[in-house]
Amino acid sequence: MPAAPHVVIVGGGFGGLYAAKALDRAPLRVTVIDRRNHHLFQPLLYQVAMAGLSPGDIAYPIRSILRRQANARVLLAEVEAVDLGARRVSLAGEDSLAYDYLILAPGVRHAYFGHEEWEAFAPGLKSLEDALEIRRRMLLAFERAERETDAAERRRLLTFVIVGAGPTGVELAGALADIARNVLVSDFRAIDPREARILLLEHGPRVLPPFPESLSARALASLRRLGVEVRCGRAVTGVGTDGVRLGDERIESRTVLWAAGVAASPLARTLGVPLDRAGRVLVEADLSVPGHPEAFVVGDLAACLDETARPLPGVAPAAIQAGRHAARNILRAASGRSSEPFRYLDRGNLATIGRAAAVADFGFLRISGAIAWLLWIVVHIFFLIGFRNRAIVLLEWAWAYFTSQRGARLITGDVRRRFEPPRGR
Amino acid sequence: MPAAPHVVIVGGGFGGLYAAKALDRAPLRVTVIDRRNHHLFQPLLYQVAMAGLSPGDIAYPIRSILRRQANARVLLAEVEAVDLGARRVSLAGEDSLAYDYLILAPGVRHAYFGHEEWEAFAPGLKSLEDALEIRRRMLLAFERAERETDAAERRRLLTFVIVGAGPTGVELAGALADIARNVLVSDFRAIDPREARILLLEHGPRVLPPFPESLSARALASLRRLGVEVRCGRAVTGVGTDGVRLGDERIESRTVLWAAGVAASPLARTLGVPLDRAGRVLVEADLSVPGHPEAFVVGDLAACLDETARPLPGVAPAAIQAGRHAARNILRAASGRSSEPFRYLDRGNLATIGRAAAVADFGFLRISGAIAWLLWIVVHIFFLIGFRNRAIVLLEWAWAYFTSQRGARLITGDVRRRFEPPRGR
Repeated sequence: MPAAPHVVIVGGGFGGLYAAKALDRAPLRVTVIDRRNHHLFQPLLYQVAMAGLSPGDIAYPIRSILRRQANARVLLAEVEAVDLGARRVSLAGEDSLAYDYLILAPGVRHAYFGHEEWEAFAPGLKSLEDALEIRRRMLLAFERAERETDAAERRRLLTFVIVGAGPTGVELAGALADIARNVLVSDFRAIDPREARILLLEHGPRVLPPFPESLSARALASLRRLGVEVRCGRAVTGVGTDGVRLGDERIESRTVLWAAGVAASPLARTLGVPLDRAGRVLVEADLSVPGHPEAFVVGDLAACLDETARPLPGVAPAAIQAGRHAARNILRAASGRSSEPFRYLDRGNLATIGRAAAVADFGFLRISGAIAWLLWIVVHIFFLIGFRNRAIVLLEWAWAYFTSQRGARLITGDVRRRFEPPRGR
Repeated sequence: MPAAPHVVIVGGGFGGLYAAKALDRAPLRVTVIDRRNHHLFQPLLYQVAMAGLSPGDIAYPIRSILRRQANARVLLAEVEAVDLGARRVSLAGEDSLAYDYLILAPGVRHAYFGHEEWEAFAPGLKSLEDALEIRRRMLLAFERAERETDAAERRRLLTFVIVGAGPTGVELAGALADIARNVLVSDFRAIDPREARILLLEHGPRVLPPFPESLSARALASLRRLGVEVRCGRAVTGVGTDGVRLGDERIESRTVLWAAGVAASPLARTLGVPLDRAGRVLVEADLSVPGHPEAFVVGDLAACLDETARPLPGVAPAAIQAGRHAARNILRAASGRSSEPFRYLDRGNLATIGRAAAVADFGFLRISGAIAWLLWIVVHIFFLIGFRNRAIVLLEWAWAYFTSQRGARLITGDVRRRFEPPRGR
């Protein structure tokens, strides 16, 4: 009897993980490769950055998730290239791995639109390390302001700029306003954290571009109620140690956070197939790579259009659905059937804005305010993997809501760096 | 009216924090200086290292603990020197701070007994960063073993050496055995984590030297039941990338942890007063520095003898009692009364050994086994600061006990370092 066909899945995010689970009990060998040992629940990453949750609350070892799936194994390794012709992936070091079927789901990274030098001054939010770095900078800015005697420098330290008003930027701004106005309020003696200035900058004409205009307007009103200054319609033209430039205007700030854009994983370029402008793979309707029916791309790296010809949103449900679909197409191929086109079922969009405010768009129904916020909680708890994490996160949120405290206000990392201004990593 | 006398407290550990709290409502200005923003509940640090708890569970911002104490402020800063004559402490950077009364409680660091080069290969456990580094090395050793094809190298990766069998070493060994035998057991495909070899090395004649011999013997039996190999009575003579040397014997291992000794904070040397061999300050009976009745040293940096002429143990209750005593002596001095000598009240000693086993020594009563373990839980939860942390830690422990899972099995840190063998920091 020949060995069962080998499915290699690159990436243990939503796309890769749900693909692996969809292959449970199939007569296949499944290998999931990720350069981190944990699956990360990215929709709540901003709460780790804003000291509301601990890394362990939203991350779970991929091995543990798949421990009972006998046909799956997990490798902690970095995939450096894919050879579609030879059907092999090369790992960092000397190893390479042959596959019969491939699912590529490596995700995306931050993009600075040709200004990669901005990254040192304006970290983005993709990994737990990013979140802890943003948390460190945010908490340190308040600590340094408490010790600062120069009024202008204190002003700069208490000015926070968030570039990009998509869901991540809006969530960061709302959580930061909540921390400054409610959580830190009686902790300091020399400064009043409520005086912190929080600016949210958006190149486009309105906040939350993927949402309908009416919900953008309500999100804007919620942000303003929290004291966030929103500036739309102008592009950031410079980022440095002293703040950002917005056209001719200089905004002086010691803490700039980047939520403005993503770029495809460099893995895409090793494929030798056509990519779109953002570096994503132009996949077939069944999510396969053109000319390679055995190789699929899912999640943020796949450029596929839904039936209205809009690109798929970079959200967890789209990645999960695509991952499961690719897995089903592999099962079909393995049993000699032809593959089926992918159809994204948009169940709606949610974004939260600080405490007890959110917007939800279900197409036929648009809601905002406290009910949208409760819905947001239910949906996120439901999708958070593992009973334990759900219980802990609920407890943390209840505690935060009723006490206005935060459980994870720790500055960690290199002790020496702790006293330096944030000048890159 | 002159300004209230200024009390500077260096260190927000048990000694410093409880000293600050004992000065609540006193007509004094209190400044607590720490180079970290959090108080750390050190007795549970080994659980962070062994992936049972998250950093946020056992650490709490010092600011938040003292937020309602109107006479106290908190500075995130590093104290570099103390000028006892001028009554000033110098901070890293250019600042310095004048005091009327001083409480020095900076704690200790690891000591490698003249072999500081061993630190890179055998990290110790004093800070959250240390704990995360130890966790990273421990989890990575299993990950690398899963991918390793060479049997000898796999053996080295699955051999863990802990140097020093005091309470920390015993707790680390017990928790590591529990993880390898119970937690990781079905997560791997190529290796069986139960085959991991865990060695606990002790220079002295028995484990848990501060405990009576009968309890040491019971702890040893518990460790053996967990499969830990214990070697007493020989000193480690070498530590490197390949393992440790124990006299003539080489023990090959890729993961060596250090729990063998501590040295005083270098701050002690800036005082210009007599120190003991370990670099600790030889304080007067009232905990003051000889010749400086306004300056006190508490916690692990103080070399003071109890009435039986044994040095005080480096445990939290001793630091708490000394911190409170120094605070009371300052209150006496501020109201013109003379200071009183410190007397340590030893309420007993506890150490835990893995799952459902512990030893407790109350002098008149010595217990071990499950009852000692329950007692250990009650005591540690009671002293853990903050309602929230107590609730979360209890939940984590209950979950870990009933499911044999661990909530914090995350490898974080620099991505590039993740694939390198642990060669120093």
